[in-house]
Amino acid sequence: MSSPNESSLGLVETQHVSITAPLKLACGIVLDAHDLCVETYGRLNAERTNAILICHALSGSHHAAGWHTDDKKPGWWDHYIGPGKAIDTEHFFVVCPNNIGSCFGSTGPLSQNPQTEKVWGPDFPPLRARDWMASQHLLMAHYHIDCWAAVVGGSLGGMQVMRWSIEHPEKLLNAIVIASAMKLSAQNIAFNEIARRAIKSDPDFHEGRYAQTDKVPRRGLALARMIGHVTYLSDTAMADKFGRELRIGDFLVGKTDPVEFQIESYLNYQGDKFSNEFDANSYILITKMLDYFDLSRDYQHDPVSAFQHAKCKFLVISFTSDWRFPAQCSKDITDALIASGKNVTYVEVDSDQGHDAFLLPNPRYQQALGGYLKRVAAQLRIPNR
Amino acid sequence: MSSPNESSLGLVETQHVSITAPLKLACGIVLDAHDLCVETYGRLNAERTNAILICHALSGSHHAAGWHTDDKKPGWWDHYIGPGKAIDTEHFFVVCPNNIGSCFGSTGPLSQNPQTEKVWGPDFPPLRARDWMASQHLLMAHYHIDCWAAVVGGSLGGMQVMRWSIEHPEKLLNAIVIASAMKLSAQNIAFNEIARRAIKSDPDFHEGRYAQTDKVPRRGLALARMIGHVTYLSDTAMADKFGRELRIGDFLVGKTDPVEFQIESYLNYQGDKFSNEFDANSYILITKMLDYFDLSRDYQHDPVSAFQHAKCKFLVISFTSDWRFPAQCSKDITDALIASGKNVTYVEVDSDQGHDAFLLPNPRYQQALGGYLKRVAAQLRIPNR
Repeated sequence: MSSPNESSLGLVETQHVSITAPLKLACGIVLDAHDLCVETYGRLNAERTNAILICHALSGSHHAAGWHTDDKKPGWWDHYIGPGKAIDTEHFFVVCPNNIGSCFGSTGPLSQNPQTEKVWGPDFPPLRARDWMASQHLLMAHYHIDCWAAVVGGSLGGMQVMRWSIEHPEKLLNAIVIASAMKLSAQNIAFNEIARRAIKSDPDFHEGRYAQTDKVPRRGLALARMIGHVTYLSDTAMADKFGRELRIGDFLVGKTDPVEFQIESYLNYQGDKFSNEFDANSYILITKMLDYFDLSRDYQHDPVSAFQHAKCKFLVISFTSDWRFPAQCSKDITDALIASGKNVTYVEVDSDQGHDAFLLPNPRYQQALGGYLKRVAAQLRIPNR
Repeated sequence: MSSPNESSLGLVETQHVSITAPLKLACGIVLDAHDLCVETYGRLNAERTNAILICHALSGSHHAAGWHTDDKKPGWWDHYIGPGKAIDTEHFFVVCPNNIGSCFGSTGPLSQNPQTEKVWGPDFPPLRARDWMASQHLLMAHYHIDCWAAVVGGSLGGMQVMRWSIEHPEKLLNAIVIASAMKLSAQNIAFNEIARRAIKSDPDFHEGRYAQTDKVPRRGLALARMIGHVTYLSDTAMADKFGRELRIGDFLVGKTDPVEFQIESYLNYQGDKFSNEFDANSYILITKMLDYFDLSRDYQHDPVSAFQHAKCKFLVISFTSDWRFPAQCSKDITDALIASGKNVTYVEVDSDQGHDAFLLPNPRYQQALGGYLKRVAAQLRIPNR
């Protein structure tokens, strides 16, 4: 998967940025100020034209690439961000904030509500993808960037990218939308609702006010993650990785001993791990953002009208085995872009990794993303330092 | 969907059958006696050659057709069983037992363990599909039937049918295997394990000993059902039925009111309803039967060798939009049957109803099943009474 010139960013540091400009949310509530944990990789050029914004998805964070001192593995998109990688930090200044409402240090349900001086918890305002965009827009000012060379994201990240393209058409030159959709299907909403109900069913949830107890709804959050995890993988990927192999027991006739499949133990492990890392209120909040997103709701439900506001170029990428955000959703995006006269490149990448493919090594994906951004770098006349 | 000569069985009665012959289970435990709730429709002919066994799936019962006095809807397969229907009670004597381990009156986790005089609960012996077949084999003796005209079942029901065909080749003339598989995929096992974990995570579960409390793990069971339900429907069916329609709220900017999609309310309703009808220990037990089933495990993992033991004819049916038991699984069954020289008819039915299609009205499915069984009736020279 690695090309010879590929190397890691090495140790990276998290920046704590205080945004003191008010942020008016779609729900009408105004956050007078908010904090963002941000990581940046590479150097902003003198013209401030080489910045790329990375928009994370449901469980993502600001730590997209490189290593923290206590990391067991690098940032979530380290395969694609770094010197010589597809998002090449030799050419670009890469900005990745942890978005509000999440739980990795930016303002969210775990933060204190300045008005009550108590933890927000379940009272944190409901959010939309456009609120993340609005916060990122304020962050742009913090770095004195006038226009992103590209805004890039997968899944919920891609929804923010599309929102950027039509709400701030002058503020980005390229939009890269990966494994995303203009709106979720009923099936997607159903899986999200089951995950939310799993969390809310946990007696330790206390209607979201668990911060006032000594417990967190770990069981519910683990279940939510297990449901998500299965839907992010393809049937083929699970079959290849686990098949019907057993971890415990056997099927001899005449035995009552328990039997456990590898896949069961793997999923339980993933669920438990996640329940120690993520916040239940954030999970509920962000899955609702996914459900609520509908690109063209404010444009007479016509994606072509919506995209007519865009001025940037587009790269749209999907993965063949993704059944949570099927390739058809990306084709629909591409069709709407073409119909509204936009410059769009669409790549359907063969992969058996399901929705998770957007995070995993894949030579063709790497070539598509890297090749597109190489052209962007060339067009910006960004010199290789 | 109805043909002119189609009519209902009307009121039907449940029979309570005590099987006093010992039943040796695959796990080695022997049930000295067991009870079965059974429904029969139509009349057994003098030669006792016109009997059809119906094998139910995960949540099925003996009540396959007709009405009970307090029914809001008829038995679970009423579309296909009745006078003039595909499984025509004018021609056939249809036998449908509730299988052991289930919770509709037959011996199972809700029954008393005769040795301890306490409710079995989680200590009910682990079961395999072959145990259901063995119990049905004893039931056959109860009705003095030597050979089934056909054994029919969908999903887990189809697994029992296949097991019948190779374990008791002399005891059936036709095997009808609908929306089934020779073994589950890792993805299927994963969904079952999440459902089980949802039940076990419910603090009212008490490691399955909830019969000794005044509660049942309703929340966990509801979640388990919601997960199952989504996987039994197709994305298209859900989109057609619910789309992104809202039940509560709207998306006006500047509002913090909650929003609820129709699909959310529907799923929550289905989960709650099921949690009042089904037993949590039975759900765990029967999902494990599904996971453990592997047709050819005892035949050097070679389905062709397994099916070489069969002597009956086969009808295999699958549905195009079934992603829990995809058509490919039925094609694999058919290929193995052909390779072992069996007489097999395979029908892939176009449907957008997902796995649930095997329970729902569908003209082509009705024709395939009805046409096949009409020929069976003719070959048996069963006179129309």
